[in-house]
Amino acid sequence: MTKDSAHDPWLLTPGPLTTSATVKQAMLHDWGSRDAGFIAINRRVRERLVTLAGGEGTHVCVPVQGSGTFAVEAMLGTFVPKAGKVLILINGAYGKRAAKICDYAGRAHVDLEWAEDQPVDPARTEAALAADPAITHVFVVHCETTSGVLNPIAEVARVVARAGRRLLIDSMSAFGALPLDAREIAFDAVAASSNKCIEGVPGVGFVIASKAALAAAKGNAHSLALDLHDQWTAMEKNAQWRFTPPIHVIVAFEQALREHEAEGGVAGRGARYRHNCKTLVDGMRALGFETLLPDHLQAPIIVTFHMPADPRFVFERFYDRLRERGYVIYPGKLTVADSFRIGCIGRLGDAEMQGALAAIKATLAEMGVKSGAPAPLKRTA
Amino acid sequence: MTKDSAHDPWLLTPGPLTTSATVKQAMLHDWGSRDAGFIAINRRVRERLVTLAGGEGTHVCVPVQGSGTFAVEAMLGTFVPKAGKVLILINGAYGKRAAKICDYAGRAHVDLEWAEDQPVDPARTEAALAADPAITHVFVVHCETTSGVLNPIAEVARVVARAGRRLLIDSMSAFGALPLDAREIAFDAVAASSNKCIEGVPGVGFVIASKAALAAAKGNAHSLALDLHDQWTAMEKNAQWRFTPPIHVIVAFEQALREHEAEGGVAGRGARYRHNCKTLVDGMRALGFETLLPDHLQAPIIVTFHMPADPRFVFERFYDRLRERGYVIYPGKLTVADSFRIGCIGRLGDAEMQGALAAIKATLAEMGVKSGAPAPLKRTA
Repeated sequence: MTKDSAHDPWLLTPGPLTTSATVKQAMLHDWGSRDAGFIAINRRVRERLVTLAGGEGTHVCVPVQGSGTFAVEAMLGTFVPKAGKVLILINGAYGKRAAKICDYAGRAHVDLEWAEDQPVDPARTEAALAADPAITHVFVVHCETTSGVLNPIAEVARVVARAGRRLLIDSMSAFGALPLDAREIAFDAVAASSNKCIEGVPGVGFVIASKAALAAAKGNAHSLALDLHDQWTAMEKNAQWRFTPPIHVIVAFEQALREHEAEGGVAGRGARYRHNCKTLVDGMRALGFETLLPDHLQAPIIVTFHMPADPRFVFERFYDRLRERGYVIYPGKLTVADSFRIGCIGRLGDAEMQGALAAIKATLAEMGVKSGAPAPLKRTA
Repeated sequence: MTKDSAHDPWLLTPGPLTTSATVKQAMLHDWGSRDAGFIAINRRVRERLVTLAGGEGTHVCVPVQGSGTFAVEAMLGTFVPKAGKVLILINGAYGKRAAKICDYAGRAHVDLEWAEDQPVDPARTEAALAADPAITHVFVVHCETTSGVLNPIAEVARVVARAGRRLLIDSMSAFGALPLDAREIAFDAVAASSNKCIEGVPGVGFVIASKAALAAAKGNAHSLALDLHDQWTAMEKNAQWRFTPPIHVIVAFEQALREHEAEGGVAGRGARYRHNCKTLVDGMRALGFETLLPDHLQAPIIVTFHMPADPRFVFERFYDRLRERGYVIYPGKLTVADSFRIGCIGRLGDAEMQGALAAIKATLAEMGVKSGAPAPLKRTA
């Protein structure tokens, strides 16, 4: 059953994604969670993440066990007081999920919605804040992986700051590849995870938080496990986790951060992903496929393609054949259009993107599909 | 920085603990979370855990990202309705933590306390249930790792069933090594984790739940991430996790379950731990140390020893020297006595327990400590 690493399929998905062999090899050891060696690793991981967010001196990193959603729920539950009210900017599944989290946690919220192929709009946000003085916080998703759209975080942050409200950012699929600097963008907290653009393995999330906002958040949380204030104060006290950390995942995360730094940090990682994205989009367009988004709205994370009109194109078969050829893609999550998605993050470069395109071309030929072009009607459905 | 696996220290702790090389090697691959290969692994893990609990046909396994505490909080939040009331049996830190979780989640609770070196008492439990008809659920810890005491789960379950209430069990440090069979012990749910007696790596917990109780738990949870009913219904629908699973941890968990089965399941695993425990206790007594608990209350999981009276014994130095010799032990968590703890679970056998005893003997000699005997006063402090 043990397969050779060299033959694992390439994951062109928004995560779990393909990681380097060295990141996985870092998990071949056991560590005591209260032992000095692990404590030092944990400290270095937290410090490096703060540096990546430009938050040295002003911000701290609070890691939390679980997936990215655990970090997002922990952020909302910890920073929004029980009597607070959140304006949630929604242009996809992850904005909707934040609204659901607020319902569970009993936090009042107003939702501002856009179509999934549109970025959120700072002007409408500004108007909503002016209209409702009870709103204390704004929640926005940096890159909505539902469609792959990049939201205008900097402009949203300016509007929120001008209105004297606090900003919470879900930067899950963008952090580490797209710039997000606390010295330029005012935020109380940003949530992300080990398993996106930093290219660690899944199992731990983290929140980069303003120290002042975090210090003021005592007693807010609706959950012990997801209380970031409690997690932070405990970790500041003795550098240990309150509850058993996912040791192997964190040790792998440190290795991933080292490789991220060696690639040139956010700039270097972002450049590779932009190149991957361009290779993918150019190649797919040459096969007749059309992207959901115009290029200026497309984040270099995951690309949504319209389903081809050709009736010989059956997505499940397309997916399975690509899988057999060694490439795993992702179904669509859109309500606005029939679509599928291909990611360009993870340990993938030119060879893998070209390989994926060749596999797609061969699969289309095998299926007898002449072109990836969608039906004109479907594109506006 | 990459150390040879052969030189990792042995972890004589309650977790994270020492795992086999093959369990760690299972993490050398990447898997798509929505791909058939991983879905099959996830199904096998869930089925095997139900079998271990004797719950085939009546119970299901719902895994949840995070540490054991995440599973315990998910269990309490999901099974206790907002209008419910929990009787919490407390004889250590993990009972106290359940009370804290209920405070966060807004669940009413009454706490029944015993000293940390005493098991909980079914008769007092029965009286408390008779006295308060508002109590809907009882929460009990199977083995309290605060002291290592084994609680009388079967007797507690009988009392709870007779009183027509529902039982929730935290079997974190016992599941997989001590028997807990749904056909003999009536419970609504049992929480445990990958990283205790099954000997996986940390990062995922699970709850074995009665299908009927779980089906009735819709809408109870205080948290989206920790809603076991929602996690269950989503997983039953398409066999996938709602939110990114800790893929590598789960693949390692399947390997750990395979090795658990090869060792003879609960009986085989329990036998090795009992042998480890006896070796440890006999050896420590020969060095003058005294255990907190009499043998009949001691679970074969972790053993609490009184601090030696000899002023030349300084725990921090003792810990560090043992660490240098390749053995990591655990500080005490007791309030009733000055103590430290040594675990006997994880991939440890006779050679490792004898090795630990030899290292302890050598360390005492180096420190000039003649005997591990505690002061008579300290023992009853």
